[in-house]
Amino acid sequence: MSVSNFDLLIVGGGAAGLSCAIYAVRYNLRTVVISSDFGGQILETSDIENWPGIKSITGSMLSKNFEDHARSLGASLVYGFVKAVKREEKNFRVETDANGFEEVFVKSVVLTSGAKHKKLGIRGEKELSGRGISYCATCDGAFFKNKVVAVVGGGDSAITGALDLASNAAKVYVIHRRDVFKAKPSYVDAARAHPKIDFIMETNLVEVGGSNKLEYVILDKDYKDSNRLLLDGVFVEVGFLPETELVRNLGVEFDDQGYLKVAKDQSTNIPGLFAAGDVTNASNRFAQLVTAASEGAIAAEASFRYIAFK
Amino acid sequence: MSVSNFDLLIVGGGAAGLSCAIYAVRYNLRTVVISSDFGGQILETSDIENWPGIKSITGSMLSKNFEDHARSLGASLVYGFVKAVKREEKNFRVETDANGFEEVFVKSVVLTSGAKHKKLGIRGEKELSGRGISYCATCDGAFFKNKVVAVVGGGDSAITGALDLASNAAKVYVIHRRDVFKAKPSYVDAARAHPKIDFIMETNLVEVGGSNKLEYVILDKDYKDSNRLLLDGVFVEVGFLPETELVRNLGVEFDDQGYLKVAKDQSTNIPGLFAAGDVTNASNRFAQLVTAASEGAIAAEASFRYIAFK
Repeated sequence: MSVSNFDLLIVGGGAAGLSCAIYAVRYNLRTVVISSDFGGQILETSDIENWPGIKSITGSMLSKNFEDHARSLGASLVYGFVKAVKREEKNFRVETDANGFEEVFVKSVVLTSGAKHKKLGIRGEKELSGRGISYCATCDGAFFKNKVVAVVGGGDSAITGALDLASNAAKVYVIHRRDVFKAKPSYVDAARAHPKIDFIMETNLVEVGGSNKLEYVILDKDYKDSNRLLLDGVFVEVGFLPETELVRNLGVEFDDQGYLKVAKDQSTNIPGLFAAGDVTNASNRFAQLVTAASEGAIAAEASFRYIAFK
Repeated sequence: MSVSNFDLLIVGGGAAGLSCAIYAVRYNLRTVVISSDFGGQILETSDIENWPGIKSITGSMLSKNFEDHARSLGASLVYGFVKAVKREEKNFRVETDANGFEEVFVKSVVLTSGAKHKKLGIRGEKELSGRGISYCATCDGAFFKNKVVAVVGGGDSAITGALDLASNAAKVYVIHRRDVFKAKPSYVDAARAHPKIDFIMETNLVEVGGSNKLEYVILDKDYKDSNRLLLDGVFVEVGFLPETELVRNLGVEFDDQGYLKVAKDQSTNIPGLFAAGDVTNASNRFAQLVTAASEGAIAAEASFRYIAFK
């Protein structure tokens, strides 16, 4: 079915998409959000303690709050996958697999499709994810006070993650497959000087294990006479994959790490196409709930201006 | 008294300052916030409906939530005025009037001192503020569905405010003291073309009145044979005054409108000095709770990096 009674279509229903919807309907934009879930990465987090104003909340409850807020104001939240986004004269034609929304014509699109944490792809990783395996030191570090943890990776986020963790944990190992770091030398120097941080170089993880929660990792090389290391937490910081496939055909611009390049108003180089959240290079690439929500709000305002004045 | 047991001092306890504190203590920075109130502009708003995840909350309750969150994590929230911020070798010396915090030495400062809405300075304005007189169309427009309102001003925020209001209100007057607009011509054209918007040019408000809530305004010139106009709401959009006096002596850079210039990580041109919220030119200058909170979080992370690696 072909639908043309919306002004704005938002791809993705995480913090960025739902915040964008909340703001957009307040501007009286007829707004539809298409997403495979409402909550996005919020749903992957068991306890959230860094959403300002709430000391602790489950991911499922916070995402329910966002969803209810958007729905109560009149946003249409539709479950589905967006298959294609195309320019058609002054409008966008968006193709989805959602019943009744096979083809949606809108004036503006906000892409909030997020980014995936790259995984290690090793035995035990999936099962122990959220049970000692984490993909965000900033988000989950505070849960590992006085624990022994490891960071896997050699870039900026791995090394700053290690320093961040070292302020809470008893001991932090940095496990890196190469003998040099991609991270800024000043970061590496600070980590080397830190009494709680040890380096395990030219080493890969081959397995993570434990009953119910992470207890140990298996290395592909001995460290202190053993290939088995006892750990309470492993932080996998080996990079992100921004989900940008949908808009590649439109000729959007990317930064050197594959993130969508946005201006201060979250606009891309394609008129009418905005982006918010982890898929973009905004907010100093500090990927947090509150930064994603902020970008969503800014994108809604910019989209309102675009629609009103185009 | 001289205090040197903190890493980070945050000037201002609004959404930006408290969010910054929440993030900073999660990085284990020893953090003190000095402010004359905790809540800032949140406290000036009776009902807040655009904080993502909460359909409606009073300003006093939301600011209490922010404050409790920051305190529970271990931030020191101290009532007081900051009198001076000075560079002293690698540290900052901050002078305040708070008992026991007369002189605070810290490694980093985040300025979240906000901006003041310029006021009209006319009779009745103060009394009816929050009772029909508003300084933010985006924030309060939704409360004036099917009402008759006016916007005072001639810049971008006045004209986009009028368009924004027109999507909800029954009628919107733009009252402007000059015969030309500073706003972008495309914005003015869109407003002129809008059936709900009328212009009252070369006219000033001299008084606003009503019992308990705004009922009328008095103009300095007749409009349709009367100097009295019946209105449910007046939106004063005559500009902002960023509160930057405290850091002028440090040689900080401003943008053309007097806002503090910050980089993507909320750093100013002074090493160790960060800024967040309405005092800055960040977030496309879209001054909202959620954008301020986001900037505070980004500033905390950047300040952590600065302290760890300096």
